[in-house]
Amino acid sequence: MSKKEVKKNCASSDISIDSGVLLKKIDLAQTVGKKEYKSEMGSMEIRLAELQRALTDAKVPVVIVFEGWSASGKGTCISKILYPLDPRHFNVHSMDKIPEEVAMRPFLWDYWRKIPSKGRITIFDKSWHRYALPQRMEKRPLSHAERNGFYNDVEAFERQLTDDGALVVKFFLHISQEEQKARFDKLLGNADTEWRIDKHDLLQNRDYDTHLKYFKDMMFKSSFDFSEWNVIEAHDFNYAALKIYKILINKFEKAVERAENNSCKKTSRTIEPDVVKADEFAGLLASVNPDKEISQIDYKKKLDYYQQKLSYLEHKLYLKRKPVVIVYEGWDAAGKGGNIRRMTQKLDPRGYEVIPIAAPSQEEFARHYLWRFWRAMPKDGHIAIFDRSWYGRVLVERVEKFCSEEEWQRAYNEINDMEMHLHNHGAIIFKFWLHIDKDEQLRRFQEREAAPSKQFKITDEDWRNREKWDEYEKAVDDMLGRTSTNYAPWTVVESNNKRYARIKTLKLVVETLEEELK
Amino acid sequence: MSKKEVKKNCASSDISIDSGVLLKKIDLAQTVGKKEYKSEMGSMEIRLAELQRALTDAKVPVVIVFEGWSASGKGTCISKILYPLDPRHFNVHSMDKIPEEVAMRPFLWDYWRKIPSKGRITIFDKSWHRYALPQRMEKRPLSHAERNGFYNDVEAFERQLTDDGALVVKFFLHISQEEQKARFDKLLGNADTEWRIDKHDLLQNRDYDTHLKYFKDMMFKSSFDFSEWNVIEAHDFNYAALKIYKILINKFEKAVERAENNSCKKTSRTIEPDVVKADEFAGLLASVNPDKEISQIDYKKKLDYYQQKLSYLEHKLYLKRKPVVIVYEGWDAAGKGGNIRRMTQKLDPRGYEVIPIAAPSQEEFARHYLWRFWRAMPKDGHIAIFDRSWYGRVLVERVEKFCSEEEWQRAYNEINDMEMHLHNHGAIIFKFWLHIDKDEQLRRFQEREAAPSKQFKITDEDWRNREKWDEYEKAVDDMLGRTSTNYAPWTVVESNNKRYARIKTLKLVVETLEEELK
Repeated sequence: MSKKEVKKNCASSDISIDSGVLLKKIDLAQTVGKKEYKSEMGSMEIRLAELQRALTDAKVPVVIVFEGWSASGKGTCISKILYPLDPRHFNVHSMDKIPEEVAMRPFLWDYWRKIPSKGRITIFDKSWHRYALPQRMEKRPLSHAERNGFYNDVEAFERQLTDDGALVVKFFLHISQEEQKARFDKLLGNADTEWRIDKHDLLQNRDYDTHLKYFKDMMFKSSFDFSEWNVIEAHDFNYAALKIYKILINKFEKAVERAENNSCKKTSRTIEPDVVKADEFAGLLASVNPDKEISQIDYKKKLDYYQQKLSYLEHKLYLKRKPVVIVYEGWDAAGKGGNIRRMTQKLDPRGYEVIPIAAPSQEEFARHYLWRFWRAMPKDGHIAIFDRSWYGRVLVERVEKFCSEEEWQRAYNEINDMEMHLHNHGAIIFKFWLHIDKDEQLRRFQEREAAPSKQFKITDEDWRNREKWDEYEKAVDDMLGRTSTNYAPWTVVESNNKRYARIKTLKLVVETLEEELK
Repeated sequence: MSKKEVKKNCASSDISIDSGVLLKKIDLAQTVGKKEYKSEMGSMEIRLAELQRALTDAKVPVVIVFEGWSASGKGTCISKILYPLDPRHFNVHSMDKIPEEVAMRPFLWDYWRKIPSKGRITIFDKSWHRYALPQRMEKRPLSHAERNGFYNDVEAFERQLTDDGALVVKFFLHISQEEQKARFDKLLGNADTEWRIDKHDLLQNRDYDTHLKYFKDMMFKSSFDFSEWNVIEAHDFNYAALKIYKILINKFEKAVERAENNSCKKTSRTIEPDVVKADEFAGLLASVNPDKEISQIDYKKKLDYYQQKLSYLEHKLYLKRKPVVIVYEGWDAAGKGGNIRRMTQKLDPRGYEVIPIAAPSQEEFARHYLWRFWRAMPKDGHIAIFDRSWYGRVLVERVEKFCSEEEWQRAYNEINDMEMHLHNHGAIIFKFWLHIDKDEQLRRFQEREAAPSKQFKITDEDWRNREKWDEYEKAVDDMLGRTSTNYAPWTVVESNNKRYARIKTLKLVVETLEEELK
């Protein structure tokens, strides 16, 4: 089949579906003749294999999601797609069971971990959408805030992936109550397959209409422009397979085309670049005077006091299963390392981790920029301290032009979305900007160059960054203004006096945690 | 304290211990005065921080293991070590609970995953040694073969790390039965700490002598030249901390020195390079004629037959929780990709994964070369197919001199050890060398260059490799001769005819699995 013909096929009515409405009206029992199937399938397999290579060359990451009724044939359909593909470039994840380390993190964490690198295909057999359904959540119930924020989090996730150039294709395999019952009976009648059906499957069949309502609701709420649902009539495997192939070929072709035109860089969300350019937040950082003092005696007393308290609170966090995320950003030589050390010094090391962020590795660079931060998000009851963070996107990457303006402009929303998701899960978030003035930085740079034991701390890059102070300050202003939310507020820490800064961060963390854990 | 004094201290008798014998004789109740502690500790903290930086600069990975009685103060000791260290360069792992994904893999898998990259420190609070102890194994019992091979696997692991330049330091915190009981009583008397003591702790105290025997046995069997046990008398926390500091400073200093002299490249195991040089296995590959045929009709019939069988066996593997590892190596253009595709085509994609191996990423390069393969080892009941593998060490890395002769020479043992560990865990291992002759390779290269749809498969590197055919053949001979074991044998697959090769690998996998799963 030529490229043209495939396109024609894809434009035909059987794939333009309105998932929210059509579920009941469509004819589930559609079939396709064996001969027609064989002839169409043969050429489509070759085409799909070609497109896989094209997607790899074009470095497009692809996420394919399969949802549907129990026994609707998800496994069979996945096998049929994979048949012509090169198994070295795809991964399949069966997301049925939720391991403990997954249950102890935000519900999208496991999916973020598993997103494909550029040019690879990841297939999810069952997915994050499942959390919206009753009776499958018994192993990892959503919190109240997660339930309320569920579709926002899902939309943000799928939007972020597609904005980054990924292709997200979602299939829902649909069968009738009678067909499902017949399939269950067949499986249950055989000792080799009987184990595949559990109680929840049987209840799904018994309460088919209720579940249909839930599925409809799920699809209605999670069909987005950039990742709509494709409902597949799945009584006849061949019919279903052909339809899935047509959709995939169509989507793959478009994705290759988009990647070649580089138009994937366009965000799907309206942002207002004028706002950023208008210096809405100019002067925000300058309004904080970094000169605050604390006496040596007072410092020692308070350091000891708050460190003891934090050690106690760490234990309480653990028992209450509350995760904590602490972000450190700040000028070079502002004292991040020393501040972090005082924060952790009296803590049980089994309860926290410090994650130093440097330039991304190849592996990291091949994925969405938030991937490496998601991977490091703490388990419930643990503390993750980021020494530099995802804010690099709107600081160093913006100033040094490591990403496009389009990319850093949309990053404000992406970051707010990510932090909202953490917050919905119950995480407590601190974000510190360690602030010193230009004179103090110069003094510290010179001091570092003079002392042999500190020379390792100062590099040419630090001097180069210093020359761009004003550009960085503008970026900091925008960052503070656009990402200070009530669920994840920024704190500018006056750091000309390191001791003052250490007490300020410790005190804030202690007092906030005391309040949260009351 | 000067470097000299530290060295003097470390040479004193209190740290030269014979862990197997001394456990009962040593005076557990040793103490240190508060004043002495403070003065010694102050300078040692500074020294340890200096040494951490030196180890980072020298790119030495450090593994520190804490074992000991319940309530012997492991957490406290770890905190004391970490106090002066930069938290951005260490990780602490508490290894008490065994998550399901860990329980479904060889017992060292989780530790391999967590080994430090060059220049970082990883601290294990409890460790792999624990599997040798009764009553802590309830969540992840060792198989019979694992129990028998336990200390071989442990020795191989620690040897491989240290041979690669890592420093492994193991501490055992020792307290008496009375002291333990007193500590338990104190913890149990407080509602805030009562949860820390469980049934197994109490049984350990009740049956102290039995456990002492087990601990002694564990230390006796796992004290190696390159990673001996250090027994710490732990009644007095200050005494224990000082002793641990002294040992660490001594070990760190030596490790920095070794790294600077590059003498860490010396393996600890006697290898016989002469054997390799003597061409013991010359002609092994040449003895196989890659010309074997199968008719097109016969091929189609057998392909279908064995693919069906394998699909059934995959399901059986899953139910019996047997992991399978399949390694594909072979000449460029020998047909690995196509062979793998026929192997997987009828399989349920949720049960297998194909792992393509390219040049190591930065992240991989910063660790032991086996790290990335360990990470990809299959869960019980799953199949991992490696498209190229750890054998790169003794093939491309040897021929292209990407590693030293020392390194590839010792790799034969390391690889045999790793496969033995997999085997002990119950894995079924296949290793295929896809063999074609030089003429056939030329024909395929030319064919690839001529066909537009295949050009992506041929690169300059392929032509360069071809020029080194004889060197590679020698490397293959050595590999086949030195790593064909009865638990993980090599199969040379005659591949001039691709169809013949596909049926041969499929048939062997099917027949072996049928035998193993009977």
